[in-house]
Amino acid sequence: MRKFAAEKSKNLLAHRKLLAAGLRRHPTSSLISSQSSSHSHNYLPHSSFLLRFLTTSAANPSAPSESMASDYSSTPVKIDSINPKVLECEYAVRGEIVNLAQKLQEDLKVNPDSHPFDEIIYCNIGNPQSLGQQPITFFREVLALCDHPAILDKAETQGLFSADSIERAFQILDQIPGRATGAYSHSQGIKGLRDTICAGIEARDGFPADPNDIFLTDGASPAVHMMMQLLIRSKSDGILCPIPQYPLYSASIALHGGTLVPYYLDEATGWGLEVSDVKKQLETARSKGVNVRALVVINPGNPTGQVLAESNQQEIVDFCKKEGLVLLADEVYQENIYVPDKQFHSFKKVARSMGYGEKDISLVSFQSVSKGYYGECGKRGGYMEVTGFAPEIREQIYKVSSVNLCSNISGQILASLVMNPPKVGDESYESYTAERDAILSSLARRAKTLEEALNSLEGVTCNRAEGAMYLFPCIDLPNKAIEAAKAVNTAPDAFYARRLLNATGVVVVPGSGFGQVPGTWHFRCTILPQEDRIPAIVSRLSEFHKAFMDEYRD
Amino acid sequence: MRKFAAEKSKNLLAHRKLLAAGLRRHPTSSLISSQSSSHSHNYLPHSSFLLRFLTTSAANPSAPSESMASDYSSTPVKIDSINPKVLECEYAVRGEIVNLAQKLQEDLKVNPDSHPFDEIIYCNIGNPQSLGQQPITFFREVLALCDHPAILDKAETQGLFSADSIERAFQILDQIPGRATGAYSHSQGIKGLRDTICAGIEARDGFPADPNDIFLTDGASPAVHMMMQLLIRSKSDGILCPIPQYPLYSASIALHGGTLVPYYLDEATGWGLEVSDVKKQLETARSKGVNVRALVVINPGNPTGQVLAESNQQEIVDFCKKEGLVLLADEVYQENIYVPDKQFHSFKKVARSMGYGEKDISLVSFQSVSKGYYGECGKRGGYMEVTGFAPEIREQIYKVSSVNLCSNISGQILASLVMNPPKVGDESYESYTAERDAILSSLARRAKTLEEALNSLEGVTCNRAEGAMYLFPCIDLPNKAIEAAKAVNTAPDAFYARRLLNATGVVVVPGSGFGQVPGTWHFRCTILPQEDRIPAIVSRLSEFHKAFMDEYRD
Repeated sequence: MRKFAAEKSKNLLAHRKLLAAGLRRHPTSSLISSQSSSHSHNYLPHSSFLLRFLTTSAANPSAPSESMASDYSSTPVKIDSINPKVLECEYAVRGEIVNLAQKLQEDLKVNPDSHPFDEIIYCNIGNPQSLGQQPITFFREVLALCDHPAILDKAETQGLFSADSIERAFQILDQIPGRATGAYSHSQGIKGLRDTICAGIEARDGFPADPNDIFLTDGASPAVHMMMQLLIRSKSDGILCPIPQYPLYSASIALHGGTLVPYYLDEATGWGLEVSDVKKQLETARSKGVNVRALVVINPGNPTGQVLAESNQQEIVDFCKKEGLVLLADEVYQENIYVPDKQFHSFKKVARSMGYGEKDISLVSFQSVSKGYYGECGKRGGYMEVTGFAPEIREQIYKVSSVNLCSNISGQILASLVMNPPKVGDESYESYTAERDAILSSLARRAKTLEEALNSLEGVTCNRAEGAMYLFPCIDLPNKAIEAAKAVNTAPDAFYARRLLNATGVVVVPGSGFGQVPGTWHFRCTILPQEDRIPAIVSRLSEFHKAFMDEYRD
Repeated sequence: MRKFAAEKSKNLLAHRKLLAAGLRRHPTSSLISSQSSSHSHNYLPHSSFLLRFLTTSAANPSAPSESMASDYSSTPVKIDSINPKVLECEYAVRGEIVNLAQKLQEDLKVNPDSHPFDEIIYCNIGNPQSLGQQPITFFREVLALCDHPAILDKAETQGLFSADSIERAFQILDQIPGRATGAYSHSQGIKGLRDTICAGIEARDGFPADPNDIFLTDGASPAVHMMMQLLIRSKSDGILCPIPQYPLYSASIALHGGTLVPYYLDEATGWGLEVSDVKKQLETARSKGVNVRALVVINPGNPTGQVLAESNQQEIVDFCKKEGLVLLADEVYQENIYVPDKQFHSFKKVARSMGYGEKDISLVSFQSVSKGYYGECGKRGGYMEVTGFAPEIREQIYKVSSVNLCSNISGQILASLVMNPPKVGDESYESYTAERDAILSSLARRAKTLEEALNSLEGVTCNRAEGAMYLFPCIDLPNKAIEAAKAVNTAPDAFYARRLLNATGVVVVPGSGFGQVPGTWHFRCTILPQEDRIPAIVSRLSEFHKAFMDEYRD
């Protein structure tokens, strides 16, 4: 591994000169790059990925295990001959800090005493089942039966599976042409499952939903890419994104060669979304020649956890309508609400309640089976509901989704299940609601405990998580810590996160991966470790923080 | 629907003028467009998609069902304001002919006597289970058990599942951290499953394989997109593709804004791949300023069905090595070989046999669970084996795969199963081999029967399908038929395919969707209808063809 790291440094040094100019162009500026050459970097108001990427000393999980003694000079693809958009793209949730965590985990395997902790606790990513959350039994029963329908008629099956899971599997199979769960489906997904999803949306919103508006996808991420691919023509096309944002958006905009136009959420008002600020950012971008095409809203917020008030959503809808923006509504945390004074409202419901119909506003809502109380990340299911696009545009979306044929059928089935769970009277209803409520109430308790623990730390302030799966505390880092970070060429919050990991085994993502007001420092920490682990995490975190502050206090 | 069609025509007519120039620029030319503006069209040596797309009269499957009376003029996204690369992209396998088929199917539902056939037979796509092929029992047992591990310890499970499927499920669960089949995995896929896949590759090739080289993906298509995204910077980057080709390649190159550089397979020599012709095309492209980055080889061929000889593969490897091209080897039909005189050799095995190691040649092999004898299209499983790329390039591939987090876990598990099926001594071994061999031998018989039937038709010649799932007959269309097609502004082979569909319910894809030597006409027909249906299909096809020729014979 050392050999590999050495060669890697050598190779990268040769390219660093080439990239350095672009790299440091907008380290923490809040201006928008526009009309720049295809080799320039996508605007992001946080330290450039490339800087962090090139200076990482962590192990590369994709490195070949064979010796790296000889070089790749005779192979045709060089770092300066690949698509620059790929180079520009970054995704901190699985970036440097996770590579370091994987290295530490390997160390612990070889020698359990190699670090001052027994295990790595991955709080970097919203991946509930990786931290011990159990799947909802009914959903898994139905999936298993659809995977192996041959057992549906067997006597033993009655003893192993709930009656309503068997019934539901039969219903679903009847919706699939030829009951073929191993066949490509319609490019938008199996029609009957889309009908079920629409019934779920109608029950949620009180407004009609059309199965022809539903595009089932392998999780929400490919759906976001599909919309970015449709809307972005060049660097001069801009997408308004919240800062902080989930880095899928910055990554997708970079990969498609567009410009991220930031609007800041206001930490002081609980990550409030001020439409007047969004408008200012839009105007600034337009004045620089950026053609702003869409507004991304993440509700409940990621990484920020706020839940928008309906009146705020109405302002956003009116703003998009007036300014001719597509509203891209990331609503994957719609089931994750933890405070009694807030409620989820879909943007479609809000728009329809305001009297806006299909022809009035272009709105895409993203949903995923990875989040909610189910947390089925590995199933890669999700959908987007596409409304307010002319038929000829929808044909193009359909065509692009056809190129990949269809999303995976298990994920499609699961998406229909989460939108139509067991109902009163079904055999599984009680166990289902017990499982669901236990998960959601535990998440609410964990959010509260962690928030309070963070707020008790010196120089740390943390808004409550009204929803979603994360806390995003602000750390007032001492100047001495900032200087120490600079000395090792690292962003101060990344420096803090790395120190935290090395001391406690807890993995969090530095705020610079999501964007933050320049000069402020944050990290994102999930609320997902199981409840019995929370006290230990809190005490490790508190102990580390105190020691860190003692070391660097001004 | 009529209202919708009328409005659609109106909307599209307004844009036709705008697009017309680009549209007809290279209708059947064999020259390569290069260095053209971002609005020009990707080169393809067959009639432009846009022409067919704009002139389609078929129902749009994604059209909203509500009335289209009012217009979308107040919505912001217009056909001329979307990404032109999306407009340029085409995917004939699910194109116009399938829309027409879906319309006819709807007609039959409403009135079973509405057409001179009882049902639509989809021979347009390699989707075996949609036509009645049954899944391999062992694979589905394991998938079901991994979906619902709670039943693994139950007594009834012993009666329902084979002993080795239970054992395998335990093995797989042990490879997954926390046994969490609902968690995101490592971005490249679960390490233990990649180990299993490598063992399968090693057993197949007799050369080592490295789990760090494996990237598990949702089918082969996303893997192809990932490589195109990496390699293509602009229109002046070219990818050598066979003509005829599987249109995923042309679609992906178009979406990523590159140039397809065609090389023709020689129909007269059983779709032979002449390296001297590839070299000529490479040189022509280079002389026009195209920076050719990679060579795509599909082996066994799609739509052409040829299986490359090892000596031919050696020439290809040497050619890529010498010319500095990445070899993109589509090997998804590696299990589908139907003739005793041909055998599948992976390009990696060929390269390693020639003495080329990791640092000598950049080679990506694509594999999928959708093909082979398993045909599990709906599971969206697959992988690419990436060899011969420097560590810093691999980090970029890893980063891009991280943005979508991971491929679906069921697909990952299935990919490990197809590369490591039951072995002699396992309880399922006999039933597994019986199922596998029945499918493969039946496919071989169907290929033979359909090939002979096609060759017996007037003016039709058809190479044998040595492998894959398709026949690609050449039809010597009478001039009168060509004139009749022209009169309705349709490519002659699309005209033939549409007439065939309307007369028989059999859906095939016109050759123009794959590319063909200008002036020749083909269609692609899968060999996938169940064997008891083949005689009826042959007689319907023969009867139609005779009537068609009688109508248009010169």
